[in-house]
Amino acid sequence: MINRDFLIRAINLAKENVNSGKGGPFGAVIVKDGEIIAEGTNTVTSALDPTAHAEINAIRNACKVLNDFDLSGCEIYTSCEPCPMCLSAVYWARIDKIYYAADQYDAAFGGFDDSFIYKEISLDRDKRSIASEQFLKEMGREPFNMWINKQDKIEY
Amino acid sequence: MINRDFLIRAINLAKENVNSGKGGPFGAVIVKDGEIIAEGTNTVTSALDPTAHAEINAIRNACKVLNDFDLSGCEIYTSCEPCPMCLSAVYWARIDKIYYAADQYDAAFGGFDDSFIYKEISLDRDKRSIASEQFLKEMGREPFNMWINKQDKIEY
Repeated sequence: MINRDFLIRAINLAKENVNSGKGGPFGAVIVKDGEIIAEGTNTVTSALDPTAHAEINAIRNACKVLNDFDLSGCEIYTSCEPCPMCLSAVYWARIDKIYYAADQYDAAFGGFDDSFIYKEISLDRDKRSIASEQFLKEMGREPFNMWINKQDKIEY
Repeated sequence: MINRDFLIRAINLAKENVNSGKGGPFGAVIVKDGEIIAEGTNTVTSALDPTAHAEINAIRNACKVLNDFDLSGCEIYTSCEPCPMCLSAVYWARIDKIYYAADQYDAAFGGFDDSFIYKEISLDRDKRSIASEQFLKEMGREPFNMWINKQDKIEY
């Protein structure tokens, strides 16, 4: 169920982040059982970490709070539609639902590449602006074979 | 220029990671000026962090080594084709090129969702298995307006 206050909190975090100079204009909160359990803002330029987007930071913080890598039962409220990195992180974290205010086109207006990266990911590999090259495919399967045969593995 | 040894190193990291039980069967290295400057393995289940994929960890480590959030001039060698989260992180980090061994179909064979998430991201939002809902769009633009007007911002 949408809680307007949670999204306003995410937007306010984004604004505070611009004022503090810690990073880009993005904020996010993770909600479980009707309460905010973790927050995050974009800290790319202050943490010197290009993966430190608001949603990624919020997810990392929520996992610390819950002591779990699985956020099933949680929702994320974010000031802007997640970029493909953060959307994928939402999938890996098994978050139930995403609420967002601005979207990727607003982000583009702000000078961010979210929309561009969405387009790139949907392209065939050989059409993307960052080239990919596959080799040693057979050798690359060996870790998966080891994984499949491992008895005491922790799956995720 | 491809260096076969760098990819073998990434694959060996993936294998060591299965043996050590630190996480999934994935390894990656970041190369600059013909030398490995950072490495990473998947530590999702040991760090309790669903974003701690091999490439993300390698990118974060490389940024620490270079003291920069921009990895222009670097290449990544990874035991498996990056998932959409990690591919997007490669874009955000401005890495020049990706070399990989196994691919997303091998990952699916190993029980991982890479291929599934690639499909999901390409779908319209309302067709994805994790629902997204937009509201407060106008308020969501405010952080971007603040960002655009900020004089001393560090862009990325």
